Amino acid sequence: MTSNPHRLSDAEIQGFIDGKTKPLGALGRVETLAAQLARFCNTLTPRIDTCELVIFAADHGIALEGVSAFPQAVTQQMVQNFLAGGAAANVFARSQGIPVHVVDAGVAGDPIDHPKLWSRRIAPGTESSLHGPAMSAAERDAALNAGARIVANTSAKALAFGEMGIGNTASASLLAHKLSGLALNDLIGRGTGVDDAGLAHKSAILAQASQRTAPSLSADTALSEYAGFEMVMMAGAMQAAAEDGRIVLVDGFIATTTAAAALGRAPHIRPAMVFCHRSQEAGHRVLLEWLTADPLLDMDMRLGEGTGALLAWPLVKAASAMLCDMASFDSAGVSQG
Amino acid sequence: MTSNPHRLSDAEIQGFIDGKTKPLGALGRVETLAAQLARFCNTLTPRIDTCELVIFAADHGIALEGVSAFPQAVTQQMVQNFLAGGAAANVFARSQGIPVHVVDAGVAGDPIDHPKLWSRRIAPGTESSLHGPAMSAAERDAALNAGARIVANTSAKALAFGEMGIGNTASASLLAHKLSGLALNDLIGRGTGVDDAGLAHKSAILAQASQRTAPSLSADTALSEYAGFEMVMMAGAMQAAAEDGRIVLVDGFIATTTAAAALGRAPHIRPAMVFCHRSQEAGHRVLLEWLTADPLLDMDMRLGEGTGALLAWPLVKAASAMLCDMASFDSAGVSQG
Repeated sequence: MTSNPHRLSDAEIQGFIDGKTKPLGALGRVETLAAQLARFCNTLTPRIDTCELVIFAADHGIALEGVSAFPQAVTQQMVQNFLAGGAAANVFARSQGIPVHVVDAGVAGDPIDHPKLWSRRIAPGTESSLHGPAMSAAERDAALNAGARIVANTSAKALAFGEMGIGNTASASLLAHKLSGLALNDLIGRGTGVDDAGLAHKSAILAQASQRTAPSLSADTALSEYAGFEMVMMAGAMQAAAEDGRIVLVDGFIATTTAAAALGRAPHIRPAMVFCHRSQEAGHRVLLEWLTADPLLDMDMRLGEGTGALLAWPLVKAASAMLCDMASFDSAGVSQG
Repeated sequence: MTSNPHRLSDAEIQGFIDGKTKPLGALGRVETLAAQLARFCNTLTPRIDTCELVIFAADHGIALEGVSAFPQAVTQQMVQNFLAGGAAANVFARSQGIPVHVVDAGVAGDPIDHPKLWSRRIAPGTESSLHGPAMSAAERDAALNAGARIVANTSAKALAFGEMGIGNTASASLLAHKLSGLALNDLIGRGTGVDDAGLAHKSAILAQASQRTAPSLSADTALSEYAGFEMVMMAGAMQAAAEDGRIVLVDGFIATTTAAAALGRAPHIRPAMVFCHRSQEAGHRVLLEWLTADPLLDMDMRLGEGTGALLAWPLVKAASAMLCDMASFDSAGVSQG
C-alpha cells in the first residue's frame, strides 16, 4: 500500500466546475453527476467514456405460485432473444455501441448451449420462498463470488447491470421489505402486468412468504431467503465493480433492490453508484426515497434488462466529458458575469 | 404530385409496438416517442440515426438596458469558444459524435473571421425593443430565409438547434408573452444569473417594452418586435427542417419560445418537434404547459446552446432503434403473457 494520496475536496471540485464557460450552476444535474465522478475517481478529469452491459438471468421458485403475468419459460426464451440481439436492451446498447454480456445465473430447464453465453448457473432456478429459503447460504456465496469474477471479464469504465427473471419483482419486493423496513404492500407492483386479481393474489402470497422470517434481516440473510440468483450475482458484481473503481449504473426496481442489498453488505460502494431511472413499478419510488437516491431519468419505463441504465449512460459520459474537455473562462478568454 | 400514400393509423403503430418482446407499455415514454417518429415519417421503421447541431448566435439591443448578468462581448467570445470546440455544447456533441455548426446570425462588433463559421449576419445585433422594433420586417424575412437555407447544408435525420446571445432570455420572455398571452412576469427568469435587484430591473424594463405593442401579436410581428436574429433564423430553420422530413430537437426556454413562433407561422410542423428538456429558467415550465409539451429530460439545466437537445438525442435514437431493430414475440419465439 502506498500512502493515501491527496483527496480532492468538494470545494476544489466545485471550483473547477464553476470555472467552466457557463453561468454558475447552469448545467444543473450534469454538474452534480460530474462532481460525483470526480469525487469517486479522485481526479478533476475522470475519463468515463466506455460502458458495458451485463444481463443476469435466473428463475424464481415463487413464480410457480402464480405471481407473474408471463410463464416461467419466458426467462429462457428471453435469454435466447438477448443472445440473438433482439431484445430492447440489445437494441438500446447497439445504438450506443455498448457491448452486451448475457449471464445464465440460474435459468430453469436444461442448460442453454450458446457460444456467447456466460454460463454461471448456480441451480435451475431458486426454491419457492413461500415455503423456505430461496437458496442455501452456500449457493448465495457462490453467486456473489461468480458476480465478482464476472467483473474481471469486463474492461469498461462504467458497468450497467440488467436482469431478466420471470417473477423477480415478487422476489425484489420481499428483499426490499426485509432490507428497508418499508411496508411490504408499498413495494408490490404489477411487474410485467398482472391485473387487479393477479395483484391481490401476488400480495397475499408475498405477505405469507414474508411471515416466514423476522421483520428485518441482514443483507446476506435477506438475499438467501428471498432473492434470485440473478440478483445475488448482480450484487456481487456491483461490489466488485465499485471496488475496482468502475462506475455502477443502477437500473430499475430489481437492480435498485439489489443495490440496496449490496450496500447493506458494503456501504462504502455507494459513491460508485449512479441511479439511472425511476421505474413505473410501484415499489421503486419509495425504495429510491429510502435510499435518498434521485435518479436521472423519469421515462415511465418498467422493463428491466438494464434498459434504463443504458438510456442514462450518455448523461454520465457527458458529465465526464464536461470535466475533461470543456474550456474554462480563463482558457477560452471569456468574460465572467 | 403522386397520390397520397397510405397513412399509418395510431392503431397500426401501437399494434406494431405492442408486438415487440416486452410487456405492454413497458418502455413508457420511449414508446410514445417511437409512435411520434413512426407517425411523422409514416413508416413503422423510421431510421433516425444521425443528428447535427446548429448553434445560432446574435446580440440583442435590449442587453444594453442591463438585463443580463454577463456583458454583451460574451456572445462573440462564446462564438469563438464554439469554433474552438470548448463550450458545453461542443463537448456534449463530441461525446456522441454529433457535428456542430456555428452560425453568426447577427453578433455585435466586427464580423468574425473563421473558416468554420457560417456567417449569415443580418446586422451587428438588433435594436433595443424597449424603444421600438428589434428589427425591420425585411430583416426578419431575411433571417427566416437564411435559416431555411441553412437546413439545406445539413443532412442528418434529426437536427438539434441551439442558441447563444447575451440578453436573449429577455427577448424570449417578451416574445413568449406576445405569442401565448401568458403573464409576462411568469415568463421572466434570471437568465445567466441576475440577482434579485437585477431581476426586478429586468422585469421593469420588459414591462415597459411590452407596453409598446398590443397585448397579442401575430408570430411574424412578435418576431420583428422582440426577437433576436438567432431566434428568427432558428424559427426559419425549424420550419424548413420539419417540412424536409427531419426531426426537430427543441432545446430550452429560448428554443421553445422560438418553436412557439415557428408553430404560430406553420402549425403543421408540430409532429416533427421533440421537446427535449425542461429548463430551470422560470418561464420554460409555463410555456411548455401552454404548448402541451412534456419534455423528455428534467436536468435542472439552463444553459441553452442546444445542450438539453443533445442530451435527449440518445432517447430519440433509441426509440427509432426499438422500432427498426427490436424482435417481436413472433420473430423471437417468446411466449406472450
